[in-house]
Amino acid sequence: MAANAVWHGAGRRIHMQEVGTRDGLQMEARFVPTEDKIALVNALSATGLAKIEVTSFTSPTAIPALRDAEIVMREIERRAGVVYTALVPNQRGAERAIESRTDELNLVMSVSETHNLANLRMARAQSFAALAQVVATAQAARVAVNVSLSCVFGCPMEGDVAEDEVFDWVQRFADIGVAGITLCDTTGMAFPSQVERLVRAARVRWPGLVFTLHFHNTRGMGLANVLAAIAAGADRFDASLGGLGGCPYAPGASGNVCSEEVVHALELMGYDTGVDLAALVAAARRLPALIGHDIPGQIAKAGRRLDLHPLPEGFGAIRERALAR
Amino acid sequence: MAANAVWHGAGRRIHMQEVGTRDGLQMEARFVPTEDKIALVNALSATGLAKIEVTSFTSPTAIPALRDAEIVMREIERRAGVVYTALVPNQRGAERAIESRTDELNLVMSVSETHNLANLRMARAQSFAALAQVVATAQAARVAVNVSLSCVFGCPMEGDVAEDEVFDWVQRFADIGVAGITLCDTTGMAFPSQVERLVRAARVRWPGLVFTLHFHNTRGMGLANVLAAIAAGADRFDASLGGLGGCPYAPGASGNVCSEEVVHALELMGYDTGVDLAALVAAARRLPALIGHDIPGQIAKAGRRLDLHPLPEGFGAIRERALAR
Repeated sequence: MAANAVWHGAGRRIHMQEVGTRDGLQMEARFVPTEDKIALVNALSATGLAKIEVTSFTSPTAIPALRDAEIVMREIERRAGVVYTALVPNQRGAERAIESRTDELNLVMSVSETHNLANLRMARAQSFAALAQVVATAQAARVAVNVSLSCVFGCPMEGDVAEDEVFDWVQRFADIGVAGITLCDTTGMAFPSQVERLVRAARVRWPGLVFTLHFHNTRGMGLANVLAAIAAGADRFDASLGGLGGCPYAPGASGNVCSEEVVHALELMGYDTGVDLAALVAAARRLPALIGHDIPGQIAKAGRRLDLHPLPEGFGAIRERALAR
Repeated sequence: MAANAVWHGAGRRIHMQEVGTRDGLQMEARFVPTEDKIALVNALSATGLAKIEVTSFTSPTAIPALRDAEIVMREIERRAGVVYTALVPNQRGAERAIESRTDELNLVMSVSETHNLANLRMARAQSFAALAQVVATAQAARVAVNVSLSCVFGCPMEGDVAEDEVFDWVQRFADIGVAGITLCDTTGMAFPSQVERLVRAARVRWPGLVFTLHFHNTRGMGLANVLAAIAAGADRFDASLGGLGGCPYAPGASGNVCSEEVVHALELMGYDTGVDLAALVAAARRLPALIGHDIPGQIAKAGRRLDLHPLPEGFGAIRERALAR
């Protein structure tokens, strides 16, 4: 990309992938009724998003917030051009997801041994072996697979994870035929220089893989990281409606990068996200009633930059008095 | 700047200017006791910030939160290398600021006629005439002057302000000998493409002026705008401890860009802010007790990216069980 080209989108296409209905809602204490989840996904489908992570086929006792995965996935209205994906932790989840006509299975493991053990209770090699079976199942069923690698930009317990180690896991999944890899900044440790370097290196090494970048705004660097990734050639981003999500390692801090904030910024910058921003903001404004609390995203509160405010009361008199001086 | 150079600071100097004690505290409902303000400024002085906007010499009835401007400015400990500035709205404020040994007077007017009338109750031409007198007073007293232009990146009532109009006001102040100009995104309307273009054009036209950029994070674009400005050659930024500040046009939305977030990001990226981040974060963590509420800044909550977390309880047993499989 030419010098400073990143600041001027010039109509370049960016694919926006919504994770709020999974990464967001799974954190919520209040159970969002199934019909409201379906209505929310349907509203999101109509906005022009490239992909929606609808739910997670996890054990209902592990994540009760998403215990209605089958019903939601089956009853949403499918729009042509939108990929309906779901998180799948294991073989049982894959079977449930495939039965529910999920377009793509999103598998997950961490590139940090400590984080993988703490979160998934398996060593990374064990996770990989289990996921390789899931990949085979999906391939046999002709269902697409994406693998989300956690802690690519750092582990909250180990610290930095060496790029070689990250890339070793990418290679292993590429070797078994996985075409889509999401590089996840699980706890908001990514910073722009690191993102620019790592994304550039990954794209050079695997020109045939489809990379998604998944950032959290935990330390306020979310949008800056999106732009650094674009500068390095990335064009697919996970984001969460209203900025829902968050991270157990940073209580009180922001969650995933906010879908409507990213779309708002990228559209202003001349990128083509294909997303109807007004419809996306309208969907975000439905969230507080659904989840019972305020959302971190700013656009739902502040409006778009040219959503103008009325003149203050008595403005005419103020002007007259001023000009009479 | 070479392609993608902005993503890698390479030791380049960025000057950080704190506005929390003025732009932040003036919005607060609770009066922060004078001795606490002095202690806060002293703590900030010790962090390596280039400039601190200590207070505002406004009418005490207009902004009661800063009614102790003289005492604060006189009793802070001055550190060599730190510029102690203050907001000055008029001739009376300039006299008070100069008597209180303020290093620099920061004058303010809006490039939007509507915003200037609504906020300052004067037409822009009237503001300019009044400020020109203040500039003359400061010059006679050999006190430095900076002019902060509001709404450079948009007016919440008018919308976009033409670049020609913005630059016309810059030229008028340059013509009367003002050397420092702050381009303010008063209500968070700036977006990176606009920032990159406008800052580049301003620096080409006035290579001898010292430009500061002042962004709000109202729509989540604060840090991205800082980076866009750096890409265009800017090296001075206003920011507010804890992200205090905010904007009456966007209730509930974030305020000024957060000092410790900007320093955290820029230092990670290899820029040299000269700021002791740990000391700055410690100062930010004092704010909730002073102002009686939570702060928008993320770093005080989440910690720096390599402030690691302990292993979860029972981690040893988790690992043993996993590896025994």
